[in-house]
Amino acid sequence: MTQTTSKKQHLKVVIIGGGSSYTPELIEGIINRHQQLPINEVHLVDVTAGRDKLYIIEALAKRMIERSGLNIEVKATLNRREAIEGADFIMTQFRVGGLYARANDEKIPLKYGVIGQETTGAGGFAKALRTIPVILDICKDIEELAPDAWMLNFTNPAGLVTEAILKYSSVKTIGLCNVPVSMQMMIAEMMACTPEQLSLECAGLNHLLWAHKVWLEGKDITSTVLEKVGDGANFSMKNIFEEPWNPDFLQSLGAIPCPYHRYFYQTDAMLAEEKQAAESEGTRAEQVMKTEAELFELYKDVQLDEKPKLLEERGGAYYSDASLNLVDALYNNLNTINVVNVRNNGAIPALPNDAVIECSAVIGSWGAKPLAFGSFSPAITGLITQVKAYEQLAVEAAVHGDYDKGLMALTCNPLVQDINKAKNILDEILKVNYDYLPQFYSKKVAQDVPT
Amino acid sequence: MTQTTSKKQHLKVVIIGGGSSYTPELIEGIINRHQQLPINEVHLVDVTAGRDKLYIIEALAKRMIERSGLNIEVKATLNRREAIEGADFIMTQFRVGGLYARANDEKIPLKYGVIGQETTGAGGFAKALRTIPVILDICKDIEELAPDAWMLNFTNPAGLVTEAILKYSSVKTIGLCNVPVSMQMMIAEMMACTPEQLSLECAGLNHLLWAHKVWLEGKDITSTVLEKVGDGANFSMKNIFEEPWNPDFLQSLGAIPCPYHRYFYQTDAMLAEEKQAAESEGTRAEQVMKTEAELFELYKDVQLDEKPKLLEERGGAYYSDASLNLVDALYNNLNTINVVNVRNNGAIPALPNDAVIECSAVIGSWGAKPLAFGSFSPAITGLITQVKAYEQLAVEAAVHGDYDKGLMALTCNPLVQDINKAKNILDEILKVNYDYLPQFYSKKVAQDVPT
Amino acid sequence: MTQTTSKKQHLKVVIIGGGSSYTPELIEGIINRHQQLPINEVHLVDVTAGRDKLYIIEALAKRMIERSGLNIEVKATLNRREAIEGADFIMTQFRVGGLYARANDEKIPLKYGVIGQETTGAGGFAKALRTIPVILDICKDIEELAPDAWMLNFTNPAGLVTEAILKYSSVKTIGLCNVPVSMQMMIAEMMACTPEQLSLECAGLNHLLWAHKVWLEGKDITSTVLEKVGDGANFSMKNIFEEPWNPDFLQSLGAIPCPYHRYFYQTDAMLAEEKQAAESEGTRAEQVMKTEAELFELYKDVQLDEKPKLLEERGGAYYSDASLNLVDALYNNLNTINVVNVRNNGAIPALPNDAVIECSAVIGSWGAKPLAFGSFSPAITGLITQVKAYEQLAVEAAVHGDYDKGLMALTCNPLVQDINKAKNILDEILKVNYDYLPQFYSKKVAQDVPT
Amino acid sequence: MTQTTSKKQHLKVVIIGGGSSYTPELIEGIINRHQQLPINEVHLVDVTAGRDKLYIIEALAKRMIERSGLNIEVKATLNRREAIEGADFIMTQFRVGGLYARANDEKIPLKYGVIGQETTGAGGFAKALRTIPVILDICKDIEELAPDAWMLNFTNPAGLVTEAILKYSSVKTIGLCNVPVSMQMMIAEMMACTPEQLSLECAGLNHLLWAHKVWLEGKDITSTVLEKVGDGANFSMKNIFEEPWNPDFLQSLGAIPCPYHRYFYQTDAMLAEEKQAAESEGTRAEQVMKTEAELFELYKDVQLDEKPKLLEERGGAYYSDASLNLVDALYNNLNTINVVNVRNNGAIPALPNDAVIECSAVIGSWGAKPLAFGSFSPAITGLITQVKAYEQLAVEAAVHGDYDKGLMALTCNPLVQDINKAKNILDEILKVNYDYLPQFYSKKVAQDVPT
Repeated sequence: MTQTTSKKQHLKVVIIGGGSSYTPELIEGIINRHQQLPINEVHLVDVTAGRDKLYIIEALAKRMIERSGLNIEVKATLNRREAIEGADFIMTQFRVGGLYARANDEKIPLKYGVIGQETTGAGGFAKALRTIPVILDICKDIEELAPDAWMLNFTNPAGLVTEAILKYSSVKTIGLCNVPVSMQMMIAEMMACTPEQLSLECAGLNHLLWAHKVWLEGKDITSTVLEKVGDGANFSMKNIFEEPWNPDFLQSLGAIPCPYHRYFYQTDAMLAEEKQAAESEGTRAEQVMKTEAELFELYKDVQLDEKPKLLEERGGAYYSDASLNLVDALYNNLNTINVVNVRNNGAIPALPNDAVIECSAVIGSWGAKPLAFGSFSPAITGLITQVKAYEQLAVEAAVHGDYDKGLMALTCNPLVQDINKAKNILDEILKVNYDYLPQFYSKKVAQDVPT
Repeated sequence: MTQTTSKKQHLKVVIIGGGSSYTPELIEGIINRHQQLPINEVHLVDVTAGRDKLYIIEALAKRMIERSGLNIEVKATLNRREAIEGADFIMTQFRVGGLYARANDEKIPLKYGVIGQETTGAGGFAKALRTIPVILDICKDIEELAPDAWMLNFTNPAGLVTEAILKYSSVKTIGLCNVPVSMQMMIAEMMACTPEQLSLECAGLNHLLWAHKVWLEGKDITSTVLEKVGDGANFSMKNIFEEPWNPDFLQSLGAIPCPYHRYFYQTDAMLAEEKQAAESEGTRAEQVMKTEAELFELYKDVQLDEKPKLLEERGGAYYSDASLNLVDALYNNLNTINVVNVRNNGAIPALPNDAVIECSAVIGSWGAKPLAFGSFSPAITGLITQVKAYEQLAVEAAVHGDYDKGLMALTCNPLVQDINKAKNILDEILKVNYDYLPQFYSKKVAQDVPT
Repeated sequence: MTQTTSKKQHLKVVIIGGGSSYTPELIEGIINRHQQLPINEVHLVDVTAGRDKLYIIEALAKRMIERSGLNIEVKATLNRREAIEGADFIMTQFRVGGLYARANDEKIPLKYGVIGQETTGAGGFAKALRTIPVILDICKDIEELAPDAWMLNFTNPAGLVTEAILKYSSVKTIGLCNVPVSMQMMIAEMMACTPEQLSLECAGLNHLLWAHKVWLEGKDITSTVLEKVGDGANFSMKNIFEEPWNPDFLQSLGAIPCPYHRYFYQTDAMLAEEKQAAESEGTRAEQVMKTEAELFELYKDVQLDEKPKLLEERGGAYYSDASLNLVDALYNNLNTINVVNVRNNGAIPALPNDAVIECSAVIGSWGAKPLAFGSFSPAITGLITQVKAYEQLAVEAAVHGDYDKGLMALTCNPLVQDINKAKNILDEILKVNYDYLPQFYSKKVAQDVPT
Repeated sequence: MTQTTSKKQHLKVVIIGGGSSYTPELIEGIINRHQQLPINEVHLVDVTAGRDKLYIIEALAKRMIERSGLNIEVKATLNRREAIEGADFIMTQFRVGGLYARANDEKIPLKYGVIGQETTGAGGFAKALRTIPVILDICKDIEELAPDAWMLNFTNPAGLVTEAILKYSSVKTIGLCNVPVSMQMMIAEMMACTPEQLSLECAGLNHLLWAHKVWLEGKDITSTVLEKVGDGANFSMKNIFEEPWNPDFLQSLGAIPCPYHRYFYQTDAMLAEEKQAAESEGTRAEQVMKTEAELFELYKDVQLDEKPKLLEERGGAYYSDASLNLVDALYNNLNTINVVNVRNNGAIPALPNDAVIECSAVIGSWGAKPLAFGSFSPAITGLITQVKAYEQLAVEAAVHGDYDKGLMALTCNPLVQDINKAKNILDEILKVNYDYLPQFYSKKVAQDVPT
């Protein structure tokens, strides 16, 4: 038997937003999987404003590779197109406007008595407006220079961004988040078992994910997990205040909500905590700025040739595993079950086929194939349909710079809902992010620029 | 040709809640349609607590009939089963717990910073809990004593009550509301045309109804109507504060919202107005109590033999037309288009087939057949799915006395949403309405009663 | 109150295929409804090949109008665009290739052991291939010259043709057939009641229509009607052999099949009868040719100034009523229930929203709005989905001249089903209809014609 | 970390229909997987009529185990309940009425000019009528005696039988067939690659399965495979005549049909071949009887202690792998992709949620989870909906002994379709299978038996 098709034996990986403090995670992951994944080129791309950080990361990455003894070329560049050309896997993890823009995303909603959070509600909406035009621009480069490449998108709000890519480009993409793997880890801890013994049937939207059923070695333990969460078992992320859950509510829900659900189901307590924290410690963005500064101080140390402990402690710890396991499954056709952001395609019948959902899917060389989840209870159907309406409208607003769609998007978001609040917040977002929203200001720009 | 089937030539109409101040409206409607509708018996039924009002109404009705010179028997009774036996049309318009209970429905939510309204949000939920067990009891009588009768239900929350009847009894029922006909009247006024020249494609839920398209003599004028509403044309009910609409929002919505939509889309302003009104004038229930007292003073006047003007000015003016036009269409197989509460049956594909919706339907001797509306925009799909989730859960809570379903219902309601608020409000509703919620307290009752 | 919109007081009607022997029916209908419908211009359009018949019909129509004493202008023309300009209602009832082409449609399938019928199966497919390009050409004229006109399409296969129009033009159209009204008449006869006492819930496809429920004065008599049909009550059209129905089958079906269902459910007997008839009397087309000749002999008689009895006896008797009732309902906003061919829009959830279905719909100045029918039994869902698959593919084949789609269409048609039969029949249809299928032969044609 | 749940370390497997000639395959599979699967008890169950064969198989199985040196107990029994008690995996592969009944299934339809095949069309229908009552009886034993056991059903018609089990019992079951794995093998052969390099997206019904997409190392090769099949590459099962496919048809279909599709798409040629074969060689059942006799002669040989070559050559070769891979995946939570018969649950949106479909699914300790396939082309949607309608009705007929449902089932089957044929075939099936259809004859039986 002649084998007519064989896998590529040299893989080129591109990390867009390579100057991020998370990059050493990915480098470590690449090193750890060198036996399964013949990656021999890693290109780190960033924008001019991130040049200094980019070169610090490049130097650290080279030291880490050197220590491993592997033959992997690391290359930092500001030339995105050069990096993308011929790439096999492209990871995106950038932040348009940086942490300063994030601070605004968190502060503006709070002024109007509304949750201010970087991925959910009005804050996530603002981030989507800034991010989607940039990512679609990157996609144009990929369509031209690396049309067969897989793009793994971590850039938040991951669901909205992935939906924009799948609707407005032909790039093969999968959206990723560390919440699902964290949920599995926390459930394993509360059940005193290994994560591998568990099977989770997860489906929802990014940061609005339910584990509808949990099995331990084939036994349905959903109800037990709900009891433990209701009794106060740890079930939150580092960056989310752990407001306790009402046990009656959880039993009535019948599915395990993700930590971000607190913003929707326990809005009052979460808002109160946010306001208090903003006054005492500053917003989350302001806290992260400090940690970032510390991390880069460490990274500069020419003796450092491994991922420092501090990074691990900082949340986002499973990002590297989540992403490189995906590369492994795609390249080696592993057909593993991972929770990813993909085109719905009927998996959740209440949502449009072309909506992006976050769900348990099979990952192999054919890409990510969602499982079929059938119908949800009314409570879950109601919320997911409402939030997806917001997302559909937000994507349209972000792509086309459409003010009315933006106003409707925020009015559909359960965390805003009131037209007047929506209008005030939208107007302030547009004003404060003037530099990052050409899709809304293009006419104005066109007037300013001589033709 | 031998005619094998012919229509009944003597019709018996039963009005449950016959002691209501609205009854003279219905009597007037019956008199006005005597040529199309051979109604010769009108039974007014009420409970012992309403006995005085019932007899005042009976006397007035008899004087109205006498003045008309028609041969119609009017009979007041506290014996519901006797009245129902052999009835052809049964109208329900009662209020369990009276206006005092309504005042609580309006006050309790306000205590927790949430809209307090008799049909929408937590107030309507409380009313549903009280009303549904009673109406299902009436339905048992109808199943036994008048299985072919049509029941026209005005009792609020009309959508929830109709859904409970259609899910838990075999009674043929249609739910009615005066909002749709009021919308048509107001649009006719703003377009300076007759209501008959207009065609409205209405679909949604009771008190959450959109006119998706409006035609004037076959011309689509939806956009013109939206402009006029955005410019401040009168478009509200007597009992709803007329907060102006944002014109951008209306154009983005693309469909004409009913007056009650203000509670959902303009929550903050409506809540502020409610709070202010509650302090200065008392809640709406308290205001209505005064008007009621005045009306019954008038009704007692033995010289009065027609519907007094005061009733007309008081809102609810189209109730009589809405209900007797329906009787006319059912009896005379007119196939008119009316907006009613019926089983969805695929008319709105996003909602379950067995959900009750409010929509344009054809009314003939076959009952009410909804039109097919196809898909709505995401904004409308999101809200309607969310509110229907609340309604499905509220019906289950009301029928089975299920606390967890009740908690979930309120959490699903966009006007409550927060679990803690939901729990506090639910607990207070259950406590305050102890006498009217046997389905929740039956175990306790069972303990008190010797077996 | 100023009335801003008023109806046109002069209506122009265009009959495309005006030389058809059915035209006197329409003229009679126009005369009979002159009080409701201010039609004062009737244009009869035909192609050059039909010129003689056209002028015979024009002369007869003028005599009929004269006799009525009404002021209606009748004008025959070969200039289609001139006739269409400014029209209010356009009726289409032409036959591309005439009865000779129909004879082929009936004969070719029979050669391969398959039902040969002018609207159903392979015969109807051939007719669709010839008709759809012509009707889309007419639609282009209407889009340009009479964009507000309503087009009432009688041209068979009416469902396929209407679907092609609604998918590939912006013309407002409703498809019509005389089967539904005939079903209502026959049921009225078997129930010994008037047609007006009946309500039918009809839904399916053109010539594949079920009456899912029948009411007599509000009483569900579906089961009684099924019994009577099973016992041999007359329930067929003049042109369809009345093979008796199996009573067990009818009860199991639970809905009343239209006469054309015999081709699908009783294929063997219908095929046997067709073969026998083709040998003894010639195909149906050949029989119709004789009647046509006789009719035109009558029409030529200058003494004749009314519709002759012979036409009435010939089937198609309700066409005039069906079509002018529709004009009446559209013009006078009557909101009557008629069974027409319209865009599905969710009325039958198993079929695509943009499929054309035949069903009970409300007709008013807003057009035709289908009722919502909900889910059918598996037996009906299976057949209707299969036949609609054929129709979708046939429309694509007809519009784009796509051979592979045509092959798949015939393979999906339950009356053909076998690929080899499908291929043989398709090849012969394409060959025999060479002159009428430019969409399949355009390249060849383009080569033959000097540019 | 304390591990609270652990897998059972001793597995009991029950083979119902243990006397089948296929059993040595399963024994071999159990031996080969002894490292992954701690099976230490294998119970072979059969009915009295199969006693002789059962003991021949038991003896051979014991010799095979002995040769392997493993510690696995083999036990033959006629006491089904004893065998089932405490079982972990139950495999069903019996044939009610044996090969003689099968011969009737193949002959009766042929008499009426209709495909006679043991799993498809009227033959498969007869087999379903005989099999479903027996399997539901077995399920009652399992519900009582081994409620946690997994039942792997090979008994044909596997789709219908699995649907009956999932609708009418609480047994955890997965239906299996060797067609999908054979398709993968044949595609691997034509692409000159290993089966593992391929990914197939398969979805349809049992014996009506399409590979909608095929990937080779992540590259979509569907179109290439269609070309090769159209060019005559081997693509059939041993027991299905390999009528060549029309290449135009395959391209238009856009998905790879399973070998059994020939019965539906190439009915005429398949029927001709069947008739010819029945006359020259006898029906397939009659041929198999001969092979069976030869095999059992071999099995009796006390020297034989391995699966004989002859069995391998006889078709059904992948049964053992298909079934034991499934046991492996269920027990070891492998999350492998297999094509199995499972509850639809929205995977194919055109079919009911509770229908059983055959499709690519993930198999782990949580059972089998189908992928989401989204919408199919009209051609596939039409056929699959039609055949599923047949299946739904056939299940009801088989479970309830409902004659009218049976008549409708056969009329819905595209291979029968004509009511008269359906009635004749149904009546003859009921007559010939009198002994095996108590659900249809129970009243009669009740009369015969003294109470």
